[in-house]
Amino acid sequence: MGVAAIIMAGGRGERFWPASRADRPKQFLAFHGGRTLLQQTVDRLAGLVETKNLWIITREDYAHLVYQQVPEVPRSRVLLEPEGRDTAPCIALATLHVARTNPDAVTVVLPADHLVVQEERFREALRAAAELASRGDRLVTLGIRPTRPETAYGYIEIGPPVEASGAYHAYSVRGFTEKPPRERAIAYLQRGGFYWNSGIFVWRVSAILSALREHMPGLMARLEPLARAIGTEQEAEELRRIYPTLPRLSIDYGVMERARNTLMIPADFGWDDLGTWAALERVLPADEDGNVLSGRVLAVDTRGSVVQGHGERLVATFGVSDLVVVDSRDAVLIADKHRVGELKAVVGRMEAEGLRDHLLTAPRSETDRAGQWG
Amino acid sequence: MGVAAIIMAGGRGERFWPASRADRPKQFLAFHGGRTLLQQTVDRLAGLVETKNLWIITREDYAHLVYQQVPEVPRSRVLLEPEGRDTAPCIALATLHVARTNPDAVTVVLPADHLVVQEERFREALRAAAELASRGDRLVTLGIRPTRPETAYGYIEIGPPVEASGAYHAYSVRGFTEKPPRERAIAYLQRGGFYWNSGIFVWRVSAILSALREHMPGLMARLEPLARAIGTEQEAEELRRIYPTLPRLSIDYGVMERARNTLMIPADFGWDDLGTWAALERVLPADEDGNVLSGRVLAVDTRGSVVQGHGERLVATFGVSDLVVVDSRDAVLIADKHRVGELKAVVGRMEAEGLRDHLLTAPRSETDRAGQWG
Repeated sequence: MGVAAIIMAGGRGERFWPASRADRPKQFLAFHGGRTLLQQTVDRLAGLVETKNLWIITREDYAHLVYQQVPEVPRSRVLLEPEGRDTAPCIALATLHVARTNPDAVTVVLPADHLVVQEERFREALRAAAELASRGDRLVTLGIRPTRPETAYGYIEIGPPVEASGAYHAYSVRGFTEKPPRERAIAYLQRGGFYWNSGIFVWRVSAILSALREHMPGLMARLEPLARAIGTEQEAEELRRIYPTLPRLSIDYGVMERARNTLMIPADFGWDDLGTWAALERVLPADEDGNVLSGRVLAVDTRGSVVQGHGERLVATFGVSDLVVVDSRDAVLIADKHRVGELKAVVGRMEAEGLRDHLLTAPRSETDRAGQWG
Repeated sequence: MGVAAIIMAGGRGERFWPASRADRPKQFLAFHGGRTLLQQTVDRLAGLVETKNLWIITREDYAHLVYQQVPEVPRSRVLLEPEGRDTAPCIALATLHVARTNPDAVTVVLPADHLVVQEERFREALRAAAELASRGDRLVTLGIRPTRPETAYGYIEIGPPVEASGAYHAYSVRGFTEKPPRERAIAYLQRGGFYWNSGIFVWRVSAILSALREHMPGLMARLEPLARAIGTEQEAEELRRIYPTLPRLSIDYGVMERARNTLMIPADFGWDDLGTWAALERVLPADEDGNVLSGRVLAVDTRGSVVQGHGERLVATFGVSDLVVVDSRDAVLIADKHRVGELKAVVGRMEAEGLRDHLLTAPRSETDRAGQWG
């Protein structure tokens, strides 16, 4: 069984400003351990997917960042979207490429910007999912066992167990749900049978292509001339012509919710989608006052805060609590920790108030040393 | 009547870190209007004191800042303390210099780092005080009519009115009090007869020298060889030998509390000693959310905060209130507005934790443009 992987690395990550910028989103930043989220995602697949079967799909603008950060992946395996069109077009395009070189592959599709604490358990779960997917025409997704009534994630409701692979059971899927309000999230946790939607999928190339053809025939029809052009001189031109016309739709809406052959494997490997700065509290060690500090930070009488320094600069906090403070070369953010999910509002105000420069990476000055955020 | 002025510009101003630094304290910074507090103090005396009668006393380390900022004051009029010894030695030394050139002068003694809103009323009050002081052997001080139960200022309790100069009355002084707890400050405000101690004094040279000899004979005895050396080749050497041995004492403790010939003139010219960042709220205009913003600041859902940007850098705040945020070239401070009076604690921690570099002015990088704080 050949396992291929498609890493989706085209996200914008605006909620991590000012560390993330329009020209360097979250997946290209290192939050812990020195390696960026994209690099960690590639590292994490070692032993499961051979490098030659690894595909990365990203936006054209980020190509240089992918080339820099994961030079071990040949440029022919880095696919470039002319613009972001959500996950269904992205997965369809990447799968057409995989199909040309490895039509029988089981493919793991996963985002580049998530965090996984227990990497060996992550690979175990994916091995079980790949084994199940290899058995035939089914769409397997990983559901994360919820540990809190999280309102920032979508949930998957499962039905009865259907099959097993080793210690892993696969369940039928009753439905996918939107991010719930808090009371409903609490109810999900109490009732059981609800799992966080990880956005990680495993399927045979043939299974997802046939599901796409069934549930998104318009998308696949538009992609047909592009599919024929792959590997020819017309490929780049066709891609630029066709891609911007594709429907903006997620694979969850477009395929997973409609398909009858979906299975979910419950998994538990210390997963977080790092949706906001506040997520760092859950995944990085805190000091005795509940602060998650990184870089050159002096926190005096400070509680429950996430503070990120930048390079040689000092961030000093005094008498404050429940803040997120993020320094960068040309901007510093000070926000209520409980509202960092709304950070796009700040980015929107910056656009409106002529502060767009600060949405892009600041030019590096000569005496400035590299910060953690690169 | 010749009026001389002694501007005391040797303070440390640690509570304005990170804008102020050990090598560039508060009096050398501009908080509004582009001119530094020292420059504003000199400007404010124009029309009252001729430049040739203007003396500035500062610490040796700050000489270059004084020379730069007020080049109109000849270097011979800039006196340099080898180290800070509080106001009594400072005033005694400066007065000995004034006495050599202008023994009959009435001298205004004032700090370089205070803020005055109504400059013409300030000069009016000083003119009245100088006129009163010229009448004989009395020590005149300005008391500021309190407008709130301030706990960060010392108070002067007055007795009956004694004399008048134009519209200004001079009162006898019952006593000087320390910074009061809040309940006592409220009582002062309710009872009346208590004024804020401005630290601005007016007296004849002969009056203060005789008061110093009476109440601080040890200080004056030690200064005697230095007084004889002024203007000779031995002056600098004697200064360095003697000055560090002088008692550390304020003029309030050393002279004003002990003297029986003190008078106070109530004054009201929009005064603030700018003791902490929170003072800026009282003296600078606020936006509709009660924020005092300066520099490149984007304040979204932010209330009651003082936010100071630095140069081209952006400070973005979101969903926070009652903070003081001050950016600088190499450090940013985020503090509870109600606790900025304790900022020395942070400076102390920086010394303890090997962050002393950030107590000095950061080297300017090539692409860095000058910020408001110079």
